[in-house]
Amino acid sequence: MDFAFDATTEKLRGQLLDFMDECVYPAEEAFEAQAAESGWASPPLMEDLKQEARKRGLWNLFLPGGHGAGLTNLQYAPLAEIMGRSPRIAPTATNCAAPDTGNMEVLSMFGNEWQREEWLEPLLRGEIRSAFAMTEPDSASSDATNIALSIVRDGSEYVINGRKWFASGAMNPNCRILIVMGKTDPEASSHRQQSMVLVPRDTPGLDVRRGMHVFGYSDADHGGHAEIAFDDVRVPVDNLIGEEGGGFAIAQARLGPGRIHHCMRLIGMAERAVELMCARTLSRTAFGRPIAQQGVVQDWIAESRVKIEQLRLLVLKTAWLMDTVGNRGAHTEIQAIKIATPRDVEWILDKAIQAHGAGGVSQDFPLAGLWAGARSLRLADGPDEVHKRSLAYRELKKHLTSPPD
Amino acid sequence: MDFAFDATTEKLRGQLLDFMDECVYPAEEAFEAQAAESGWASPPLMEDLKQEARKRGLWNLFLPGGHGAGLTNLQYAPLAEIMGRSPRIAPTATNCAAPDTGNMEVLSMFGNEWQREEWLEPLLRGEIRSAFAMTEPDSASSDATNIALSIVRDGSEYVINGRKWFASGAMNPNCRILIVMGKTDPEASSHRQQSMVLVPRDTPGLDVRRGMHVFGYSDADHGGHAEIAFDDVRVPVDNLIGEEGGGFAIAQARLGPGRIHHCMRLIGMAERAVELMCARTLSRTAFGRPIAQQGVVQDWIAESRVKIEQLRLLVLKTAWLMDTVGNRGAHTEIQAIKIATPRDVEWILDKAIQAHGAGGVSQDFPLAGLWAGARSLRLADGPDEVHKRSLAYRELKKHLTSPPD
Amino acid sequence: MDFAFDATTEKLRGQLLDFMDECVYPAEEAFEAQAAESGWASPPLMEDLKQEARKRGLWNLFLPGGHGAGLTNLQYAPLAEIMGRSPRIAPTATNCAAPDTGNMEVLSMFGNEWQREEWLEPLLRGEIRSAFAMTEPDSASSDATNIALSIVRDGSEYVINGRKWFASGAMNPNCRILIVMGKTDPEASSHRQQSMVLVPRDTPGLDVRRGMHVFGYSDADHGGHAEIAFDDVRVPVDNLIGEEGGGFAIAQARLGPGRIHHCMRLIGMAERAVELMCARTLSRTAFGRPIAQQGVVQDWIAESRVKIEQLRLLVLKTAWLMDTVGNRGAHTEIQAIKIATPRDVEWILDKAIQAHGAGGVSQDFPLAGLWAGARSLRLADGPDEVHKRSLAYRELKKHLTSPPD
Amino acid sequence: MDFAFDATTEKLRGQLLDFMDECVYPAEEAFEAQAAESGWASPPLMEDLKQEARKRGLWNLFLPGGHGAGLTNLQYAPLAEIMGRSPRIAPTATNCAAPDTGNMEVLSMFGNEWQREEWLEPLLRGEIRSAFAMTEPDSASSDATNIALSIVRDGSEYVINGRKWFASGAMNPNCRILIVMGKTDPEASSHRQQSMVLVPRDTPGLDVRRGMHVFGYSDADHGGHAEIAFDDVRVPVDNLIGEEGGGFAIAQARLGPGRIHHCMRLIGMAERAVELMCARTLSRTAFGRPIAQQGVVQDWIAESRVKIEQLRLLVLKTAWLMDTVGNRGAHTEIQAIKIATPRDVEWILDKAIQAHGAGGVSQDFPLAGLWAGARSLRLADGPDEVHKRSLAYRELKKHLTSPPD
Repeated sequence: MDFAFDATTEKLRGQLLDFMDECVYPAEEAFEAQAAESGWASPPLMEDLKQEARKRGLWNLFLPGGHGAGLTNLQYAPLAEIMGRSPRIAPTATNCAAPDTGNMEVLSMFGNEWQREEWLEPLLRGEIRSAFAMTEPDSASSDATNIALSIVRDGSEYVINGRKWFASGAMNPNCRILIVMGKTDPEASSHRQQSMVLVPRDTPGLDVRRGMHVFGYSDADHGGHAEIAFDDVRVPVDNLIGEEGGGFAIAQARLGPGRIHHCMRLIGMAERAVELMCARTLSRTAFGRPIAQQGVVQDWIAESRVKIEQLRLLVLKTAWLMDTVGNRGAHTEIQAIKIATPRDVEWILDKAIQAHGAGGVSQDFPLAGLWAGARSLRLADGPDEVHKRSLAYRELKKHLTSPPD
Repeated sequence: MDFAFDATTEKLRGQLLDFMDECVYPAEEAFEAQAAESGWASPPLMEDLKQEARKRGLWNLFLPGGHGAGLTNLQYAPLAEIMGRSPRIAPTATNCAAPDTGNMEVLSMFGNEWQREEWLEPLLRGEIRSAFAMTEPDSASSDATNIALSIVRDGSEYVINGRKWFASGAMNPNCRILIVMGKTDPEASSHRQQSMVLVPRDTPGLDVRRGMHVFGYSDADHGGHAEIAFDDVRVPVDNLIGEEGGGFAIAQARLGPGRIHHCMRLIGMAERAVELMCARTLSRTAFGRPIAQQGVVQDWIAESRVKIEQLRLLVLKTAWLMDTVGNRGAHTEIQAIKIATPRDVEWILDKAIQAHGAGGVSQDFPLAGLWAGARSLRLADGPDEVHKRSLAYRELKKHLTSPPD
Repeated sequence: MDFAFDATTEKLRGQLLDFMDECVYPAEEAFEAQAAESGWASPPLMEDLKQEARKRGLWNLFLPGGHGAGLTNLQYAPLAEIMGRSPRIAPTATNCAAPDTGNMEVLSMFGNEWQREEWLEPLLRGEIRSAFAMTEPDSASSDATNIALSIVRDGSEYVINGRKWFASGAMNPNCRILIVMGKTDPEASSHRQQSMVLVPRDTPGLDVRRGMHVFGYSDADHGGHAEIAFDDVRVPVDNLIGEEGGGFAIAQARLGPGRIHHCMRLIGMAERAVELMCARTLSRTAFGRPIAQQGVVQDWIAESRVKIEQLRLLVLKTAWLMDTVGNRGAHTEIQAIKIATPRDVEWILDKAIQAHGAGGVSQDFPLAGLWAGARSLRLADGPDEVHKRSLAYRELKKHLTSPPD
Repeated sequence: MDFAFDATTEKLRGQLLDFMDECVYPAEEAFEAQAAESGWASPPLMEDLKQEARKRGLWNLFLPGGHGAGLTNLQYAPLAEIMGRSPRIAPTATNCAAPDTGNMEVLSMFGNEWQREEWLEPLLRGEIRSAFAMTEPDSASSDATNIALSIVRDGSEYVINGRKWFASGAMNPNCRILIVMGKTDPEASSHRQQSMVLVPRDTPGLDVRRGMHVFGYSDADHGGHAEIAFDDVRVPVDNLIGEEGGGFAIAQARLGPGRIHHCMRLIGMAERAVELMCARTLSRTAFGRPIAQQGVVQDWIAESRVKIEQLRLLVLKTAWLMDTVGNRGAHTEIQAIKIATPRDVEWILDKAIQAHGAGGVSQDFPLAGLWAGARSLRLADGPDEVHKRSLAYRELKKHLTSPPD
């Protein structure tokens, strides 16, 4: 047992920290100003940052194997944390932003040669953006069998009908391709009914209707969260990813690394929130002394530190398990980080907001926006409650041969 | 001891519930659509609703004494709860919306004859809107001695310099008048330094710079939360409310009823959230049964009911105390409702959001917006922590002649 | 709506507060010393206190109707709170201690003439004690249909077989009679299977095996919590209370007032805990200032006050509802006070303990013992979770004709 | 970074798990029966278990260096967790029980040759027990400067006067020696005033007055928690441990490993609680289905698992830091585990108790006793609040050159 990072990780951490200090933090103010003007598109300065990151070798760090930087989950995780300190800029600047990351992983693992050339390559080069469409407005999507969008084969084409929402990234005008989860065989066993297909955003019948808000935010700089209607949308059968009925398995494979990324970025946000909380409360005075001297504020700071240390270790161990025994062997831990991280980081952000007074809820500090992101992750990939129930089942099964429910 | 409402209250509750059923709820969808188009102005249908409410005698219900409906705090409180069930429409439609309510109370209690004629009358008729400017961006405003905006007498005028933010209501183009809290005498004892003056919104030197956001929301339909710069703004000395040095006392007088209103409206929001949570979870199915059958969801519903019943009683008792022994005698309770209500209602709203899945954080349900409102009330009028400290001091003083700190 | 106590209540409160100051608090130290020596019996000084209380007219205050003081629930509730400030002495001294109170209520309401003369009269005079045996060790007793102790008629007798535990009061050598809940008809509908019978403690076949502990406490001064085996115990059919199959209904009738008593006593304990917490933290110094000046301690004190005010109002309203619309109409509130009071008072006691340092967990302060009492009330009368589920069902039913599960 | 145990640890874990299965768990019932009869002495079967453990090489595992097993903190930590699964038996059986462990560490590190021969040797052989006397009844001992017991040199002797309480272990008749912390120089700087001396339990003037209770428990099988009066107690100057004024430094050195042991044992208790909770709720039925199928119970189980995984990693990392950079470098983590572990394990135990119904609070299950142990650790070594304040100071100092208070 050894809690030190390996040499590769340390080297990349150093380079990434330099990039943050030299390029990302200094760009934040201008980024916000451009973002307020650029609608659904990325602020223009993002392209410069991407070039700079690529030049520095800080590019596609998330992607294992030959298509990307080839890091393990355990090596990438601490880098994702650093990116999370400026989550509106750093992940995109290094081509490590969701949902492109998950989509590239899927294409890298399950895509055929044509799909890789056509879609993976430009994504890896950061030329285009992509979206992932899974959640549906008309049913509880945490139960995969509820997915209703239909994908019906008609000769050499699939015909797609249905409705999705919270398809993150799809509002960005540079988004060119969607991975769409739908039902190909309602008669199959519950986890073999779904398939994933690639749908170019300009396909006739695909109607991006509106951007869904998250607590008042459009998340435009991340490409928003689109509601999309599919009305007899036709794509060639070659657009199927993997095999028919393989959608659920691909979704599961996509899930593990995504959790690591999300959770480590959240931890980076939490670290930044603690910094802001310390700086603010040291600099403001009420009732005759700095707010940082109030016992309750000190309690928040201490609790934040304790929570962060626990979360980071749990996520890193999960990454290590995924690297050593695979996603299946890390099932409990992958659920555990999904349960623990968003809510604890939400708590930390809430306290940092409170310590900032009215400014904390406003656009003058990143805290309220980060809070909305953390809060929505208690629902993304299924509400926490579904994961807790599933985790409890496995725990109970240790004591019983037949499942409890 | 008697927990039943009196006859006047019951009659008005009946009339108001009818108004909600017949006019307010049916208008909600159209209101949202208009609000999305109307910028900082009120949606046009509001004027029709105001006329209807006035015709029904549901007008200025909040205002005790001869200028308004003449209800006690205890009689008005349950009406405020009902209005809180549709908080973007009902308070404004009945001319019972903050910050006009508090401003009308101040003018009614402390205004001179000219001030009442010029500003109170049109406010009572619902013809104009107003704003209240107290919080400042550059210091912790929970400590009144930190207030820095200067009000200096120069002959027959006051000259005002400084900066305010979160001046609620001031972004509305129909806002004509601001009550501004500032410092007239830095040498006076700490609670005699402040004064309040009336400043027409079109006074030269007054610059409404921008609307502050609250978790991504502009709250435009409520007139937003303005940042305002005062640069040699001059008003006649007649615009002083009450006497020089009386600002803190007026703020305190304004505070008690405002707390009752805010808290009761929050309770109305909580009731609506419980209804939405029940309806949603009964109508959606996951893993083979309605979500309402999940034990954790039932736990949320039960906890919400228990919290609401406790909060309502505490607020009603506070109103009764204010009516019978005055604000000073209700000091502990006025702080207690400020501490307990926003956070418990925030909790209920959070659970209702979670029960709605992704939809809960979006613009398709009122929950996320209500949440942002409840959350910001943990900061408005000073963060909870300041009130808890003060309440603890009074508790400790029972055991000690000299104060603990 | 009126939050003031009526004249009868105020008069009795005054008399009871005098009794506490003059007789109860001064006896506490001697009581503890005697209790350490008196095994399962009441400490000897209790008889003097009982005589004194009776002389002052502070006797059987809990009992409505002609057999007792004739107070309403709303009138008695604040008196129970005062007794709760010294819960090991005051309730017994005034003949208002559980489980005698509930047993007397049952005999008063449902007992026949013989039963009243034989058992109610000596209980009312405080000459004997009694016990109530409902919970069983072998199944989850929160589900009444699980009750397995069998009561079988054999000629003019009932024959009782089975096992009970946590039969409170039964270890006291002066306990003469038990009310025992058992199953008379396993074939009846689920709430008509049970009956209650009176079983003298010296009946052959009744074996009081041991006292159950509650977090290390034997609760000997309250008569302990007995495990009892019934092995062909025979009682005359005249010992049946009410009718066969009426046990569940009697248990429900017994429940409402008992909840009020328990909850108000808990609130009295909480008030005492706050006093102790204030006194202790004002008198001890760490790191250069009284502990009462630590912000976190002040936060505990403020939260305690806010919780207490809410709990008291909810319990008082519940009492008022029981008086005005009956137990059935107060169903939600009776559950709500059971859910909210023990856990919030437990929280307050926990903080008072923490503020006392190591002494807080010891026998030198009453806090740890009070904590164990509050904690066990989260289980007594069924775990909170059962009540929350039931409360949620009623809430959901408002939105649905058929029940959710 | 590597989350696997090393070979030494795995081998010892295997041996210890065998010992638990073969010797410890089977002895639990008899142990409880003997403990109920043996007063302050260890139950007789303990000696057999000690011989067996020693024979298996499972002896003094806690002690690094040549006097003990020579394991690192990281190697011993998972063994302490296993012992914690049966905390009343396993630590003592393996001669790894507090306070002997800390006392042996102190003697091993700071004792002179005579002290080691006279006291360390018989302790290492498990022939005698020892106690540690630091906390005092008359002041808040979390502030070391409050320690008042005086140690005054008089020729070749120290004269000791004062009072201690919660001197764990001292009630055991086999306790022969106490390490006593007192004040040798009130004029020295605040952390150089204290010294530690060895005081044989039979020294004249030393009066073991009584055992303090912890939530009703005497903890007799652990040697209880003694209140001790020192009235002109005289010991040779040779009994000083280390140097005069070195007491605080020795206490700090003793602290780190003790935290690891306590926390890992708590985690073992938590694991056992989860097992008991699963087994109980699977085996009991209410309202037609096993209690394990209730969503709220599943939520408790899942939360318990998530908490345990986080706690264990944090404690293991702390052990690793102590091994690699020393106690000082692990300061934040040593405080963090003290804050997080007792309270989270307390939460888990509370839920396990609730899942057991009335039995959970009784002597029929180990849960209530374990709970009292976990609860008291929120106070032992200073209340959590002191540690949180100190941790927050270090966090704030990162942002400031001068300390915040």
